[in-house]
Parts: sequence; structure tokens; C-alpha cells
Amino acid sequence: AGVTVLALGLSQACSETVQAAEKSDISTQSVSAFDAQMTALAASIDARMLTDVPVPVPADAGGGYTHEQHKQNGKTIYEAGMLYQHTGDEKYKNFARDILLDYAELYPTLGLHPEHKPSTAGQLFWQGLNEAVWLVYVIQGYETFRDDLSPQAREKIETGVLNPMADFLSIGSPQTFDRIHNHGTWAAAAVGMTGYVLGQQERVEKSLLGLSQDGEAGFLKQMDMLFSPDGYYAEGPYYQRYAMMPFVLFSQAIEKNEPERKIFEYRDGIVLKAIRATVQQSYAGKFFPINDAIREKGLNTVELKYGLAVAYDLTNDPTLLGAVQLQDGSVVPTPEGRKLLDDIAAGKAKPFEFKSLELRDGRNGDEGALMVLRSGPESDASAVVMKATTQGLGHGHFDKLGLLYYDNASEVVADYGAVRFLNVEAKFGGRYLPENDSYGKQTIAHNTLVVDEKSHYDGDWRESQKFSPDVLKFGNINGVQVAAAEVDTAYEGVNLQRVVAMVPREDGIAPYVIDILRGQSGDGHVYDLPVHYKGQLIETNFPLEHETTQMNVFGKANGYQHLWQRAVSPELEGQQDMSWLIGDKFYTMTFAVDGPYKAYLTELGANDPNHNFRKEQALILRTEADNAGFVSVYESHGRYDNDEEVTVFDGSSVEQISTDKLETATAYTVSMKNGDVVTIYLADDTQADQTHKISHKNKQVEWSGAVHVTQ
Amino acid sequence: AGVTVLALGLSQACSETVQAAEKSDISTQSVSAFDAQMTALAASIDARMLTDVPVPVPADAGGGYTHEQHKQNGKTIYEAGMLYQHTGDEKYKNFARDILLDYAELYPTLGLHPEHKPSTAGQLFWQGLNEAVWLVYVIQGYETFRDDLSPQAREKIETGVLNPMADFLSIGSPQTFDRIHNHGTWAAAAVGMTGYVLGQQERVEKSLLGLSQDGEAGFLKQMDMLFSPDGYYAEGPYYQRYAMMPFVLFSQAIEKNEPERKIFEYRDGIVLKAIRATVQQSYAGKFFPINDAIREKGLNTVELKYGLAVAYDLTNDPTLLGAVQLQDGSVVPTPEGRKLLDDIAAGKAKPFEFKSLELRDGRNGDEGALMVLRSGPESDASAVVMKATTQGLGHGHFDKLGLLYYDNASEVVADYGAVRFLNVEAKFGGRYLPENDSYGKQTIAHNTLVVDEKSHYDGDWRESQKFSPDVLKFGNINGVQVAAAEVDTAYEGVNLQRVVAMVPREDGIAPYVIDILRGQSGDGHVYDLPVHYKGQLIETNFPLEHETTQMNVFGKANGYQHLWQRAVSPELEGQQDMSWLIGDKFYTMTFAVDGPYKAYLTELGANDPNHNFRKEQALILRTEADNAGFVSVYESHGRYDNDEEVTVFDGSSVEQISTDKLETATAYTVSMKNGDVVTIYLADDTQADQTHKISHKNKQVEWSGAVHVTQ
Ligand SMILES: [Zn+2]
Ligand SMILES: [Zn+2]
Repeated sequence: AGVTVLALGLSQACSETVQAAEKSDISTQSVSAFDAQMTALAASIDARMLTDVPVPVPADAGGGYTHEQHKQNGKTIYEAGMLYQHTGDEKYKNFARDILLDYAELYPTLGLHPEHKPSTAGQLFWQGLNEAVWLVYVIQGYETFRDDLSPQAREKIETGVLNPMADFLSIGSPQTFDRIHNHGTWAAAAVGMTGYVLGQQERVEKSLLGLSQDGEAGFLKQMDMLFSPDGYYAEGPYYQRYAMMPFVLFSQAIEKNEPERKIFEYRDGIVLKAIRATVQQSYAGKFFPINDAIREKGLNTVELKYGLAVAYDLTNDPTLLGAVQLQDGSVVPTPEGRKLLDDIAAGKAKPFEFKSLELRDGRNGDEGALMVLRSGPESDASAVVMKATTQGLGHGHFDKLGLLYYDNASEVVADYGAVRFLNVEAKFGGRYLPENDSYGKQTIAHNTLVVDEKSHYDGDWRESQKFSPDVLKFGNINGVQVAAAEVDTAYEGVNLQRVVAMVPREDGIAPYVIDILRGQSGDGHVYDLPVHYKGQLIETNFPLEHETTQMNVFGKANGYQHLWQRAVSPELEGQQDMSWLIGDKFYTMTFAVDGPYKAYLTELGANDPNHNFRKEQALILRTEADNAGFVSVYESHGRYDNDEEVTVFDGSSVEQISTDKLETATAYTVSMKNGDVVTIYLADDTQADQTHKISHKNKQVEWSGAVHVTQ
Repeated sequence: AGVTVLALGLSQACSETVQAAEKSDISTQSVSAFDAQMTALAASIDARMLTDVPVPVPADAGGGYTHEQHKQNGKTIYEAGMLYQHTGDEKYKNFARDILLDYAELYPTLGLHPEHKPSTAGQLFWQGLNEAVWLVYVIQGYETFRDDLSPQAREKIETGVLNPMADFLSIGSPQTFDRIHNHGTWAAAAVGMTGYVLGQQERVEKSLLGLSQDGEAGFLKQMDMLFSPDGYYAEGPYYQRYAMMPFVLFSQAIEKNEPERKIFEYRDGIVLKAIRATVQQSYAGKFFPINDAIREKGLNTVELKYGLAVAYDLTNDPTLLGAVQLQDGSVVPTPEGRKLLDDIAAGKAKPFEFKSLELRDGRNGDEGALMVLRSGPESDASAVVMKATTQGLGHGHFDKLGLLYYDNASEVVADYGAVRFLNVEAKFGGRYLPENDSYGKQTIAHNTLVVDEKSHYDGDWRESQKFSPDVLKFGNINGVQVAAAEVDTAYEGVNLQRVVAMVPREDGIAPYVIDILRGQSGDGHVYDLPVHYKGQLIETNFPLEHETTQMNVFGKANGYQHLWQRAVSPELEGQQDMSWLIGDKFYTMTFAVDGPYKAYLTELGANDPNHNFRKEQALILRTEADNAGFVSVYESHGRYDNDEEVTVFDGSSVEQISTDKLETATAYTVSMKNGDVVTIYLADDTQADQTHKISHKNKQVEWSGAVHVTQ
């Protein structure tokens, strides 16, 4: 009766789908992977239909009973809708309708949630964010059966819950709705998607342009502000995956309803860029665990499943199917999900290409970058990550120029990630543990330079957020991949510089990685370089005195208080190495430090009265000087195969590491035992347009910019 | 020229195979998995053919250059032979022939190896064992092309190396050849298989019956003595896998050449029993790491690949194909290997059925047993292992009644295995590390009772070897799987008893495991129960005081000197619990101890100056009393799913653990929160024929034997 229905994002008319399913049944005997998955989903919903679905009066905050029940109900409505769309079976429509009718009774009786967060209150949930997520799920389910409801049921559901909730999330919560922030994106998506389904264009406009519809807030502004031009999200991939979800779903709804907006071309295709950038920020299926990341998170997350389904539906890029093949086999229960599995079955997939890439940070791309070097396009080729980004707001870690090193599908030199057991009630309610602040965020927990046992920016994230490192170089120089950056604000009066180079070796052998890290200052400092290596220590070529009957804490504060001092070397000079075993490969780090230094082995776990840490270990190189330079060469080698009983351990292949102070630069030369030589020049003046002309080892070397490499 | 050729074990006439291959090429377009594997092998041998194959004068002991080169040459001859048999290509025959001709030059010039082990010397290798293994490989390769050699080449090879080596290994090394020991089996197999190929029946007879051919030594005697009637090998599965190899290969040769011996029926089919028993002693692909085991070893080992190929060829048992499917996909390069892959491709495989089983130890089966309880036939169903076997000779560990607990494809309560990095030169030449004796073998490194901080039998394996535990019960009682044993010789004046019960729960939920362990003595003792749990501690329901700034060593000797004391509880009474996380599941151990006790958390790594240990942890329950009883209930529960962001942590489902001393038995009752109750009765008099009639909780309970269960 005069109701305009706009097609929403993830759904299509049911009859089409059913016909398609019937047709496919005729042409092939076997059940498609997608049908099998939907059958499993149907079994789970069928089981839920056997008992009453509680719609309780809101009482609990996050994690509590009413919170979890409402979350599950939202998902149930969504899934029942997808099943109705897939099968055409009325029972799914009726099941979802009845739950929604209960909500239509409950919602009008609610005020603010009794445990509401004052700044971002909800009614059904303690915070508005959960309410927006709930509506995003529910409206997608509702769209699949809205046309097939009686007018009375439709009226009751929309008057009772959908409209008042959309009102609450927009005009009722202006401080969130108009905020340029992830929570605002969820609210915009919820309200805008509701607008499309209920035929309320004004909701759509407000969602796109802000409550006052002037474009100073709303979804488009969020697209402008929340990602860098390369699709990097300032908080890092763990949060990026979550932030991406409302962008993906609302964009898809816009595309279906108002294709003339060309939303997927907006800002040079920022949504698709962000989806691809998220995949790129993973290794062997897991996201780089920078900032407050849960390390288990990776490509299998539901947000990325939506992202890939939508991106493939738009682009038909076969390498996105390759990314899906790196997931766990299940897809989202939508026509776009079906398309993924059908096209994979039809042999259309091509491998997703992981790349060396610089993901610039900042809305204008001028606030540092996350730099990734890879030895090949596989998800488990050797990879090095340098974090030269902004702090990443309140969830950021103090790890300027921090390094991660991966090889052979394993972490080799790693970041602890967040000190947290997600949703484990017994562990501080599943929230971030106190040790996340006292250790996880601190600089010593990372693979970067620590000065005077303090964290970067003295551990003040708001201070850190004002600055970002300068990228000195990203790219290929004479066959060597290079990433370099510097920052002079992390410590007062100290400039930190890092150059990481990935040097190819013969076919079939992983590249080696040269890492130059230096701190320069006029005054004396203690410089610590922690290397959080994984695996089992095999040998060091320098002596170590191990604590045998008593272990003491390594330091007093800024994360040091959580380290046991396991071993210490005598004073060392020049080049040393250490080897360890991870899985079936050995790793050797050969290193040299300007001036005398000591090596410590530490173990995590001191001052941990609640047993909140995993067991981790580190090598810490310590030198005291005005300026300190650390040159390290990482390599993987050998084989530890217990089935074949073959062990090959080659040890360091580095002949010599030498440092030459030249006229306008310093030359770092790594000579390998096989005769290969690589020299990295780091200019004193790091400006990009500065040209250099230096005589070194009887050769003239010329370049412009901060870094040069010869081999 | 009058040479009788007997068909040997793993080979068939080449022409037959080639014909079969051609036929299969016609019928199917795609390359079979076996052909693909042989093509890869051919590529590796083709590469080796491009350079000279060194046949150096023996100089080095195990691990050194000449040792490794000769080992590799033996394998090359074998593989070239298999390729010749598979392809019919003369180049493989010629390649192997030329290497053998070099050996025919070298071998006659050799005396004892310059680094020979006095007791078991070799000529080509430092120990005779390696020489026997070399000949076992080489004679199989040689058999494939012997008929196609020129008479001159044949004569030279047999006179120069095969006959003198077989002589050296038999009449030249009587102390090994006639010894009832794994080394003797290898020698018998090498000499006997050579006898078949060269048509020398006397060699065969000596191999089967000993040098004097009276049956007091030789292969048949070894079959009588080295396995228990259930196919258990006294040193445990890690060594069993290795010991099995010559039994399998020589038996196969006997079967092919003299089927009338019915060698595979010998001793009730002991060889096939041993093969199956080896598979049964694994969990999720890895062998139970009891005794001096390298933990990485499992079903993928080459010995088991031969075992399964031969066993399937004989029996066509489709569940053996299921065992092959648990391996890594590659098979031995023989017709029997081909048959495995072809039959798997033809859909003939059925899942291998893992079983609850008692593997009796001792040649007569009366020296204790390894007892395995499983919740289902899958390789990763819940499993509990109780080690109530003999010591296991010099490689045995002092772990009488030791327990392992597995679930969800993970170790939950584990054994350290051997302290060793196999073949890693930097780690003590790859040999057993000193910490294997000082910790790995000690009782505190295991999940069993330690009395007065000493190891069983005071750590004297020869003393331990004289005794074995008594199995009190193995089987099903009223729906509960039970394993029980006792031993009263491990400590003077102390009787140790253990009852382990696996109690099923509803469908789809892992069973819980009740573990009763008690020590009984007239005198006061300190009783320690270590529980070497894996994963991350989540919570304890009792307080623990953690060391925060200094950790001290837990004890002084017998392995205790390697433990850091991480935390200690106040004095506890009654029932307590502890929960931890492994992968995506939680585990809770609910326990009660007779009388007051303390709980300690320890970490491995004290007195480890060379960093030889992995990081491991334990809970240790300690009580001081004349008699001590520990009752523990293990259960797996919940879910920790970071992709779906679902965490379910249920904690202990045990309402109460109670102990009632009755007239002739003790009753241990576990009451679950859901109302389920299980009572385990352990009789004071553990004799099997003793009958009991007891009134307990107003019910009459009657049974005979040591253990009874009601629920
Ligand atoms: Zn971090
Ligand atoms: Zn052991």
C-alpha cells in the first residue's frame, strides 16, 4: 500500500534464489559447498526454534546474560532472514517475525540502559555501539521478509522497534552519530541501512551527511577521515578489520539503492583499498599483532568475510577468491557468499598476491607509514614489517620503528600483542589486563630501541599522537628491498633511525635481512635493543652466564619490572651471533654494536601475581654511549626434520659486519662467507633531495636521499 | 649361469611393473599419486647423477662426513634400484652399479673402522648397526637389477662387498649377530635378505636360527623375545618404531621366498601385531613420548611407512589405508607403496580405529602393561595413558604409573620426553643432553607420585628393571572405562596405587577423567604429585602467592634442582580446582587430597647453564603423611573462539569429591553439578579373586577384584 521498497545490500528477491537453487540441483548431482553450509546453518536455527527465544529486560553490561542474549537474538533474526531468502521456507520468516514482535513490545518501554556508559549510552545495550551493530544485523534479516509480512506485523515491528531505535541512534545520540569515529560509522550504517529498507530517504541523507546534512559529519566524512589514502586505519589491522565492517555493509546498500552515488569509487575507491590493505596486513593467516591486538585474529574473521564477499561481487577479481581460499572455508550466508564458493568451485580463483608495500598513515598520507617487505607473493614468504606509523590512539603501543620478522609460516621476531584474554571472564572480565599497560604497550616489549629504560614519549599516548616518524625510503635499490624511517621526538634529544633491507639469495633460499638501528644524541644514554625471538635457543658464539639457582627482576619500571634476568654476557665487542630453532628451520642473528656492549637473556613473568603473561623470551643488547648503532643480520637456514632424521645446521653465513664513517654518510657493509657484499649508506643529512657523492673503498658512490645500497 | 635367484621382499620383476604402469596410463589420464611421487624421486636421483658420488675411506664416527656420505650412498643405491624397477630405465641400474663397484674396490681394503665402538664394531661405519642398516637398504636395491648385470659386474660386487659384508656381520660379529637385541635383528635381516638375493640358503638359516643354527639365537628367537604377546616393545613406541623395521623387511623377504614358513603367522602374528600396536601408541599423529622419546616422531616416520605398506599388502585391511591417510601423503617407493596410494584413490580406505587397549609388557605378557583409554576411534578423541610397564631398559624413565592426558588433538597433561635435540651438533653433538639424566628421566618430570623428593628405585634403572607394576584392572565397569595398577617396589616401604577412569558424558562432550593416586606406608613421607599441564593458566579457586621479584630453585636433586618455584599456596584442605586454556578449549582439574596440602607452581629452567630445556610448567601438590590419597577430576569444556569472538568458560562441573573408608575398601565418590554420581571402590586387598560385599550409602555393593565402579 504505497510503501516503496528499496533493495538492500546483501539480499535479493527470494524467488530468484530458489529458482537458481533448483536449477543448479538439476545440472549437478553434488551439493554445492554453499548449500552445505546453509544446511548446517538451518540445522542450528531449527534447533533454536525448538525453544522459546528470551527477549529479556536489559540489565547487564557487556558479557552479562541479557547483553549476550540480545546479541544472539540479533544474529538469529539475521540468520533466519538469510535462510528465508535461501530456502523460501516460511518458518524462518515467522520465527524472525515473532522475535521482532517481542522486541516491538519491549523497546518502547525502555529508557537508558541501567548500566549505560554515560558518553555513549544505549537502551537495549549498555553502549550505543552494540545497539547499532544489532540494528545492522537485524535490518538485513528484516529486509528479506518485509514484503511478505502482514501489514499489521510490519506496522508493529517498525513502529515498535526499528524506527524508535533508528531515531535513538541518530537524533537521540548526536554526540555519537555526528562523531568522526568508528562508533559513528556503525551508527550511520545502522540508520542509513534502515532508511533504505523502510523507504525513508531522510535517514539515508542524515547518515551520509550528518544530522544537519551539511557534510561536516556522517558516513562520507568518515570515509574521508578514518582511513589513510592507502586504506590504512590508524589503530592497526586488528581494529581495522572491525572498523571496516560498517563501511562495507553500508557502501553495499548505497551501491544497490543509489548506484549513481558511485560509492565504491569514492575517494579513489577507499573501501576496496581498505579491504585489500587488511588482507595485506597479515602473515600466514594472522594479522600483524601491532597495538592492542588479539594475536589469534586473522583472515578468518567475519568482518573480512563480508569484505571479501562484497569486494569480489563488485570486482570479480580472481585474486580475492585466492584470499577466500586462505580462510577457513566458510563464507557469509548471502548471495555474495554463494558467489565466492561457486566461483572457486568453477576454478576461477587465482592466488592472492601479497606484496611489499608502504601503507601510509594519516588522512593525508603524511603521518608515517607501515612498511612491509616480502620475499614473494605467498602468504608465508619471508616478511619484515617496520612500524613507522602514528601512535594508533589509545590502543597504540610505544613501538616507534618497531620490527616484526616472519619466515616459513612462523613468527621469528615478534610483538607480544595485547595482554588480554578476550571475553575470558576469569581474566579481569575478558578486558585488557593491567599488564597491558605496564608491559604490553611499553617500548621494551617491542623490537625497537629503548633509551634509559624509558618508553617512547614517556608512555604518554596523547603526546605521541602529535608526532609521526619520517619515512626516509621505501622501495628497491640495486636489487635490495629497503624500508627506512627516523623519528626525533620519541626521546628528548635523541634521534632514532632504522634501515631494514631484504637481500635476495639464490633461488629457494630465504633472503637475509639487514637491520640498522641507531640512536644519536649529544649526551650519554643507555641504549637497549630488545629482540623478542620465538623458538628454542640453540647456541650463541659468545659466553653467557646463566642464573642457576635464583633469578632476579631485570629492571624497575616501564615494562622492565616484568622481565626476569635469565643470563648475561661479559662485556662484548664487535660481531657476535645467536641461533635458535623454530619448527623445522634454524635462525641466526649476527650482530655488531658500535662500542662495548652486553647481551642479556630475559624471560617474561616477573611481577605477574595473577599469571597473566604467556611465556616469552628476549635477547637484549645494551650499550652505554652518546650514540649507538646496532647492525643485525637475520637469516633462516638448515633443516630439522625428525621424520627423515635429517638435521642441517649451517650457523651464521656472515663473514663480517663493518661500519665506516664517511664524509656525509655512514657505510654499513655486510660481507657474506660466499663472497657476497652489501653496503648500505645512511646519509647524515636525511633530506630526500640531498645528493651525495662519496669515495668509499676506492669507488665513487653517488645517490640522492637518505639511503643508498650497493651490492 | 646356475645362479638361483629368489624373489626378495620389496621388489617384483621390472617388466611386470612397467606393463602395469602402461596399462594404467591407458585407462586413466591423470597421473597417479604414486607416479607423481616417483617422478619427484627420479628428479632427486637425476640431480645426484650429475656429480660424482664420493665413496670415501671411512674416518668419522656418527654425524661426521664419511659416516653421512656412506649412509646417503646406501640410500641412493636403494632408491636407484626402486626407480629402475619402476621405470625400467637403464641409467638407474648403471648408476647404482657404478657406486657398488666403487664399494667393491674399497671394502676389501678395510679393517675395523678407526673410530669403532669396541663392543659392536663396524668396518664401513663406526658401529656395526649402521653397517647392517646399510646392507638392508643396498640389498633391496641390488635385487632389482642383479639379473640384468653383466656376470663380471655381478661377480665383482658380490665378491668385493656384499659377501664380505654379510660375512663380517654374521661370523665376523658373533657377539652382535647372536644377541637377542635390536642390533642383532638388524644384522639378521641384513644377512638373511642378502642370502635370499644371492641364493645362499645357509645365510638364511643362520639368520633365522643363529650362527650355530640351533634356534637359541637368530631372527625367530628375536621374534619370541623382543615383543610382548601384544606387540609391545619394552622401550616404548619411539624405539619400537625403529626396532620394527628389520622385522618387517626380513619377514617380507621370508614370506616371498619361503611362504611355507608362514612367518607372518609366527607367534600368533606378532609382526602385524607390532605394526598395529605402534600406530595405537600415538595421538594426533605423534607417538606417546614415554621414555627417551623425541617428541616430534610419529606416524610419518619411514619405519611405519614400510610397516603399513607390508601389512596392507598382506592383509588388505582397509583400516590400514586409514592409518596411511594419517601420514603425510608419501609412501615407500615400492610396489607395496603403490598399492597403498592406488587403493586409497580407489576409495577403499576406512578410518583406522584407535582403541582403548592394554598392551601387556614382557615377553610373556606378565610384566605390567601400557594402558590406553580412549573416548572414540578417532586419532584425536580424548585419551589417557597409564604407564604401568617395566622400566624400558637404559632408555627408560622412572615414571611408574605415570599418566598422560590428551584431548582435542592436544597434549593436556604431558611427558617432557627426552632432553635432546636430535642431530643438532651445537647441542652436545645431537646426543642425549646431561639434563636428560638429571631431569628428563627423573620421577618429578612425570605425572606420578614422588616420595621424599626421590625418584623411583632411587634412579637405578637396573634395579627398576627387575620389577614391574601389577595391573589391577583394565576394562569397562558399569559403563566406565577403568585402568588400575599398583607397585610396591618403587620406594621401600611404600605401596603406590593408581586408578584412572574415563566417564562418558552426553554426546559431543568429552568425557571426564577421574584419577585416584595413593601412596601407603607405615611411616611419614613427603608425597608430591606433579601435574605437567600444557597451555595457559586461567584461574585457580585457591590463593597463590607468586614470586614477583626473585625466583628460587624448588629443590636440590633428582630433577627438583631444575624447577623454579613460581608460586605457592597457603595450606589447603579438601577440594580445589585449577583451569587452563589450550588452543580453543578450557581444561579444569578439580582435586582433593587426604589431609592438609600445599599447591606449588613451578617452571622448568633452573640449573640450566646451556639453555637446554624447553619452557614447561607444572602444578605440584604436596602433602606430608603416612598415607596420601590424591583424587583428581579432569574435564575439558567451553570454547575460546577468536574468529567468532565467542568465549564460553564453564569452570569445574564437580560438585563434590568425597572419600569414605569402608570395611574392606575405600570409596571415592565424585558428584557432578548436574547430579551425576560416580563411585570408585578400591579394595584394601587387591587380589583379583577376592570378593567384596559392602554396605555403602544404604546400598549393598558387591564385586570381586581390586576395583569396582558404580554410577
Ligand atoms: Zn605491541
Ligand atoms: Zn618421560
